[in-house]
Amino acid sequence: MTVHEIIALHPNPTTIDPATFSRFVDECLDCAASCTSCADDCLAEPDVQELIRCIRLDLDCADTCETARRVLTRQTAPDLNFVRALVEACSVACASCRDECERHAAHHEHCRLCAEVCQRCKEACDDLLAAL
Amino acid sequence: MTVHEIIALHPNPTTIDPATFSRFVDECLDCAASCTSCADDCLAEPDVQELIRCIRLDLDCADTCETARRVLTRQTAPDLNFVRALVEACSVACASCRDECERHAAHHEHCRLCAEVCQRCKEACDDLLAAL
Amino acid sequence: MTVHEIIALHPNPTTIDPATFSRFVDECLDCAASCTSCADDCLAEPDVQELIRCIRLDLDCADTCETARRVLTRQTAPDLNFVRALVEACSVACASCRDECERHAAHHEHCRLCAEVCQRCKEACDDLLAAL
Amino acid sequence: MTVHEIIALHPNPTTIDPATFSRFVDECLDCAASCTSCADDCLAEPDVQELIRCIRLDLDCADTCETARRVLTRQTAPDLNFVRALVEACSVACASCRDECERHAAHHEHCRLCAEVCQRCKEACDDLLAAL
Repeated sequence: MTVHEIIALHPNPTTIDPATFSRFVDECLDCAASCTSCADDCLAEPDVQELIRCIRLDLDCADTCETARRVLTRQTAPDLNFVRALVEACSVACASCRDECERHAAHHEHCRLCAEVCQRCKEACDDLLAAL
Repeated sequence: MTVHEIIALHPNPTTIDPATFSRFVDECLDCAASCTSCADDCLAEPDVQELIRCIRLDLDCADTCETARRVLTRQTAPDLNFVRALVEACSVACASCRDECERHAAHHEHCRLCAEVCQRCKEACDDLLAAL
Repeated sequence: MTVHEIIALHPNPTTIDPATFSRFVDECLDCAASCTSCADDCLAEPDVQELIRCIRLDLDCADTCETARRVLTRQTAPDLNFVRALVEACSVACASCRDECERHAAHHEHCRLCAEVCQRCKEACDDLLAAL
Repeated sequence: MTVHEIIALHPNPTTIDPATFSRFVDECLDCAASCTSCADDCLAEPDVQELIRCIRLDLDCADTCETARRVLTRQTAPDLNFVRALVEACSVACASCRDECERHAAHHEHCRLCAEVCQRCKEACDDLLAAL
């Protein structure tokens, strides 16, 4: 994706390890999009009544990953205290959505896959926090 | 605003004190919109070079307040650990943006007003955290 | 709300009639927040199966009103062709969500109220288009 | 990315040609993220005064691509009139941002790359419109 080249061209780029940083951006993009899609798949399932909490946490996780990705993408004059608090919240959102998706993984392949992408995004958040 | 009536009609509404909850929603809406507008006012100022960090933190604060407001508005089956982490991040975003806006308050009335709305939103976050 | 004062302090403000402009911002804020809340109320209703399309169009309308409000709030060097296309899309989103909410108005007061706010936002979009 | 697998698992998937649909999702994700990053790169450039309109249109394009990608990802009971209006607005946003980025392409490599991703996203919008 072109976004990584544009991020690397910042006049005063982040000192975070590039691989850790790129993985965070990639996982947030995939997790946000996957959660939006999983919520929509759930909404169309015959057993939607069982998937209410999954839909809700998918929507939360999508919004949070999108905001975290936007904020981290901005390399100009960041406030690291805020960045840290936001990535921590994002890690919790991913863990929460992963746990709920796992409960439906046996019946819904989209939930199984969404749990996996949430877990990868949570790890990317935690690795970024360790690098901040 | 109609949103408060729709929130109150949830089949299984939040047990948070309604005044604290409504104020949080109102302040997040005003703070997100105000920060979007302050960033844009700054962008058009002749001394935009001095306002770079203000623009950046305005954009962060707008995104975070919007996500926090969306998540809190959802009363169906929330994960309170995540809600708490997100409102904490929102409080830090507001404090950070307030501090930077205050540095420009003497020269730019929009920054002075934006610092005020950030401070009110930070207080609304902190009061909500105490009520969770 | 403070946002209106901050909008008015732009160094090079829009020439759109201030009342038309302010009403657009207010209605977009209320409509976006109301649709987020109506989707969540629907998700918790015992007859959620009947409300699938309502939830979906609520989510679409919330996202679109938020983007339209952000774009219009930016008064610095706009592209009016794009502004026009986006406000037209927002008007269609509001009409679409209003029609679906009205179908459930007799059974769900939150849908009745959401249809009303969508109608008001659609009118605010159309009035803004006439003023552009 | 996992999102494409989750989209394909929808109980009642879109009848749009899968390659056209996937490309639209991919280009919207890259364009939204690239525009967020280009705005931030511009903000840190010594000649930020020359890049004001570029920053503004980057922010517009990022918001619009994100909303368009969210809406199209939802395959449950769509309103095609609205989908069409939104993708048209997204195409205009991309063209507008591309034109402005191209004006700075000779001096700023991130603007040159951003113009390219905007052009690709515009083409993906137009191809999707032809397939709707």
